[in-house]
Amino acid sequence: MGSPADSLINRPIVASIYTDAFRHNLNRVRELAPEAKIWSVIKARAYGNCFDAAIIGLASTDGFALLDIADASWLREHGWNGRILLLEGLFHDNELKLAQELGCDLVVHCEVQVQWLEQFEGKAHKPFNVFLKMNSGMNRLGFKPSSYRTAFHRLHSAGYHMHHMTHFANADQVDQQPSVGNQMEIFSQAIDGLEAPTSLANSAAILWHRNALGDWVRPGIMLYGASPTGNFSDIKNAKLNAVMHLHSEIIDIQELAKGDRIGYGGRYLAPEAMRVGIVACGYADGYPRHAKDGTPVWVFNARDDGSGLVCPIVGRVSMDMLAIDLRKAPNAAIGTVVELWGENVPVDDVAQMSGTIGYELLCAVAPRVPVVIK
Amino acid sequence: MGSPADSLINRPIVASIYTDAFRHNLNRVRELAPEAKIWSVIKARAYGNCFDAAIIGLASTDGFALLDIADASWLREHGWNGRILLLEGLFHDNELKLAQELGCDLVVHCEVQVQWLEQFEGKAHKPFNVFLKMNSGMNRLGFKPSSYRTAFHRLHSAGYHMHHMTHFANADQVDQQPSVGNQMEIFSQAIDGLEAPTSLANSAAILWHRNALGDWVRPGIMLYGASPTGNFSDIKNAKLNAVMHLHSEIIDIQELAKGDRIGYGGRYLAPEAMRVGIVACGYADGYPRHAKDGTPVWVFNARDDGSGLVCPIVGRVSMDMLAIDLRKAPNAAIGTVVELWGENVPVDDVAQMSGTIGYELLCAVAPRVPVVIK
Repeated sequence: MGSPADSLINRPIVASIYTDAFRHNLNRVRELAPEAKIWSVIKARAYGNCFDAAIIGLASTDGFALLDIADASWLREHGWNGRILLLEGLFHDNELKLAQELGCDLVVHCEVQVQWLEQFEGKAHKPFNVFLKMNSGMNRLGFKPSSYRTAFHRLHSAGYHMHHMTHFANADQVDQQPSVGNQMEIFSQAIDGLEAPTSLANSAAILWHRNALGDWVRPGIMLYGASPTGNFSDIKNAKLNAVMHLHSEIIDIQELAKGDRIGYGGRYLAPEAMRVGIVACGYADGYPRHAKDGTPVWVFNARDDGSGLVCPIVGRVSMDMLAIDLRKAPNAAIGTVVELWGENVPVDDVAQMSGTIGYELLCAVAPRVPVVIK
Repeated sequence: MGSPADSLINRPIVASIYTDAFRHNLNRVRELAPEAKIWSVIKARAYGNCFDAAIIGLASTDGFALLDIADASWLREHGWNGRILLLEGLFHDNELKLAQELGCDLVVHCEVQVQWLEQFEGKAHKPFNVFLKMNSGMNRLGFKPSSYRTAFHRLHSAGYHMHHMTHFANADQVDQQPSVGNQMEIFSQAIDGLEAPTSLANSAAILWHRNALGDWVRPGIMLYGASPTGNFSDIKNAKLNAVMHLHSEIIDIQELAKGDRIGYGGRYLAPEAMRVGIVACGYADGYPRHAKDGTPVWVFNARDDGSGLVCPIVGRVSMDMLAIDLRKAPNAAIGTVVELWGENVPVDDVAQMSGTIGYELLCAVAPRVPVVIK
């Protein structure tokens, strides 16, 4: 994509990424899973939270897990010498040599990937660590239990260092099938007698299923300070800190009369005369268009002490702007700084008002939003 | 953000951008507004459709309209010598000199921007073209009619080349207040006697309000081949072509038994034994997480003639994957190519199944998705 120079003066929106929060959240994973090694999951540009910041803040991880071999290459170029796991393995067999050169560990989830590894000429030279993926009930990637053992034996015979892996469909929920217990039972039976380290737990399992951790845990969303359930109250006491703080400014003020409407479709009707602030942030920045009236935005006070108050969104979010009700913030003016999410407004709260989860919002922050590493 | 090398082998997802479709859609704007000059709106990386492709496909436009002065700079560096409009004007007065050097036209929507221009020392040297924005009922940016004339006179006295501008809240709807008619009446009264060119119509007004075009039209979404209403049937006969075709591949197949569930939360329950394809595309690519079961995905036949059929989404979209029902596509296999949106599946249809509009989906295509210009 065309990528304009970053150095020029710009719209006031900015995403600040706090490496200290990364460090803190990784330590929380260590406290919750002290026996396990940690794959820090940083696919999708670290869930939108910036690779550069992730390799600083998560430097003490045991390994990074991601999707694209290009990202693995980037990590090596930027000095990461530890382990790297390709979470969906290889997409083509012509990636085998590069993956070996980069020293990647591989997930293997389907028959054709087994064949590639069996036929790989370089296997004797430096065999991969393989995380063989079992479909124990999620029905996304992996071998059914009935075919899992054969795949395991074939790769083991070919000389690869084997690990067992599965993924939970409902570690963030209760009363939903298949449960973690169901999947653990299927998994345990299928690997019975096949000695190898295991990798099981995502963030939700780390937080709520301490009996389903395995030897390598795979935290993702909790490293970013958001909730696996999408509900912030579920992690309120888990002592996780928001890594991304998304800020912008008020760029215009409108004085509305009673009965005036705001924005496209005129969704919000002013119940009385009121001041409205127009903020430089819209859905083309990654803010959800379907955020309802009442979605919280933090408006800082003039003085720079972090104090402020919540002013709710009024009217439909536009492509580049959104409107907030300033009736409780009489001092807010053009240039006043607001937090869209971060320290004062959990990203999960914005997500809940928009019918989605914090994961999606973090990943969706647009390339046009400048990133500052703190 | 960390940006890994693009040149490596990668996940199979790719966004193809068709410059011919840009050309065709721009010609449609000319046919619909033959008297008007055209600001092609390319903010947000051309609504996610790639600047590089836009300046090729839209080369015959009268001007480009965008937000960030950095993007204006990029256009000049890449050889665009025509007009450029900064749609929200300047965000700080220290951008004045650069904007002048780049030869930008400026929107002026608030009092402080008027003051910057009055005080600008370089104004005599090369006065800006100013598009003075009136808030005629949308209540987002701009001067209320009561203060508009004063702002106009002040900037006119300061030597700037004046234009009138407003924006419609409901050009894509009927029976919603304020109507285009309401806004036109307010606008016309407020500019009465102030001779200057006008800029009024967005895509919706170009398509459906030929009496509200003005001297400079501002097409956005229609240039990309999507509907201003979010409903594809509304533009089915408007002869617009999809600029972006989003493709990926099936990377795994699951054989489900009756009663099996798919993915997180187990939303989809298999009503019978069925094959499911796992596609390398998820919400971290920009595909909407909240796409309902039944959202169409086009599955190409093995032969490369463009033929294929719709296979619906089953289960919740994950971060990197989604699942489709292959019961009607017995030949689909790992490696089969699918279209998420484009020629066979309008982006608006995906948006409608996800409670949003095509604009948001196009803008949200993630940086990790490689772009190919066709």
